[in-house]
Amino acid sequence: MWNTITITGVGLIGASIGRAIRQRGLARRVLGIGRSPKSLRTALDKGAIDDVVPDEEAYGEADLIILCVPVDHIATLARTAALYAPDGCLITDAGSTKGDIVRQLSTLPLREGVTFIGSHPIAGSEKKGPEYLNGDLFEGRVTVVTPTLDTPDAPLLRLEAFWRSLGSQVVRMGPEEHDEALALTSHLPHLAASALARLLPIDYQPLTGTGFRDTTRVAAGDPEIWTAIFQANRAAVDAALGRLIESLGEFRQGLRAGNGTQLNSLLAQAKKVRDDLGS
Amino acid sequence: MWNTITITGVGLIGASIGRAIRQRGLARRVLGIGRSPKSLRTALDKGAIDDVVPDEEAYGEADLIILCVPVDHIATLARTAALYAPDGCLITDAGSTKGDIVRQLSTLPLREGVTFIGSHPIAGSEKKGPEYLNGDLFEGRVTVVTPTLDTPDAPLLRLEAFWRSLGSQVVRMGPEEHDEALALTSHLPHLAASALARLLPIDYQPLTGTGFRDTTRVAAGDPEIWTAIFQANRAAVDAALGRLIESLGEFRQGLRAGNGTQLNSLLAQAKKVRDDLGS
Repeated sequence: MWNTITITGVGLIGASIGRAIRQRGLARRVLGIGRSPKSLRTALDKGAIDDVVPDEEAYGEADLIILCVPVDHIATLARTAALYAPDGCLITDAGSTKGDIVRQLSTLPLREGVTFIGSHPIAGSEKKGPEYLNGDLFEGRVTVVTPTLDTPDAPLLRLEAFWRSLGSQVVRMGPEEHDEALALTSHLPHLAASALARLLPIDYQPLTGTGFRDTTRVAAGDPEIWTAIFQANRAAVDAALGRLIESLGEFRQGLRAGNGTQLNSLLAQAKKVRDDLGS
Repeated sequence: MWNTITITGVGLIGASIGRAIRQRGLARRVLGIGRSPKSLRTALDKGAIDDVVPDEEAYGEADLIILCVPVDHIATLARTAALYAPDGCLITDAGSTKGDIVRQLSTLPLREGVTFIGSHPIAGSEKKGPEYLNGDLFEGRVTVVTPTLDTPDAPLLRLEAFWRSLGSQVVRMGPEEHDEALALTSHLPHLAASALARLLPIDYQPLTGTGFRDTTRVAAGDPEIWTAIFQANRAAVDAALGRLIESLGEFRQGLRAGNGTQLNSLLAQAKKVRDDLGS
């Protein structure tokens, strides 16, 4: 049982975490911090948080702080939070990249007594805002936690137990290893979907079926949030992009070869991977 | 009201068409032709067809024949059907490409008295087989019909009325124009999804979210059917692939540029297109 959990950023993810905590009675109090009074109001109304208090107080009373903000704001906010947080406080996040944040925090560590450990719940939506909150969003999903060599055991185990209590399966990885994997499993699909979507002339809209819609769905995501993600994971995303361009080149070669054997075998490889993944 | 409609190929699409016709009482009789006795049995059991009779009889009695087979078999089957079909019979298909079929049929036209007009109902699924049939599959979807300069008006209007009676919105296009559009709206997404899916190492499966799953969903489609589609529409697919590789290159340039402005504007372009499309 936690005493006070403070959530900074009550968008879809932050509000869903708050709601999930309250639904399961995992904390005595859930406090919300955010720049938008409207989002805080919605989060309160939808039962994502118990209260909104001044930031210093919300950080000052927390034994767990969860930063649910764009990845380029996480390291800075972790510092601010640490200024006010009590001894023994654990700070985590819900960002899609980890290496950049951990690097920023290792060059100028947080004060003694406060621990930051990165988290990435692999759950979300192209929708944004607390109005779409879902207290079961993490049920059956994977959450990656990314300790470093300096991370003490006790808060790591507490953090893993927290995500499990939200229904998540926890996977432990190094921050760089996480970023390399996510470049392929999340950042690259987003780029592929966006590169595809922008080629569609308006006249062709009626000629799209579920295939086009599924393949490009994530391109509706927020451009600012995704620009920050791509920039924070630039090297791995660049490498992944290179691999996709290469893979498309192989399909092109198969297409030009003419007899269909090569094309068929590439498609069969892809189908096998996709079938293994399930719906 | 049609007298006898014969459907060749009772997979997902053929069986769904049969079921839709019977549900709406659009024909006195729906006959099925197919190579797989098991699929014909399922189609009968699921109410997609009324009967299975010898091919010559099924073609000989039809006033409408719908060929729901892979695109590389359509022209040949149209010839076979025309041999047995009565005068005034209309033959159509449900294939994803049109130019290649029309070219094959224009070099060696069908006998006088029988008309072929291409159709492409833009509806489907990565699933296959009559067990997944859905009599409302065409409800609210677009069906493209592709007359040529030689197509007589009366059967064209009858064909368009047929698809409308299944709930489809009908769009009339030239066969080449259709293929160029579908290269972008359907064939290219399939290649992008497949090129992406085959890059996923098995260890990374747990790290995929709904984004990866949506973006790669169509890669589960049948490799043989899709090889035939790509080959039948080779030039337009090759050109579309070139445009996707170029579009990815622009994202890569934006990524490397560093300040994020270019990346943000590319993502915003893509988001606009995707938002316009709706869910």
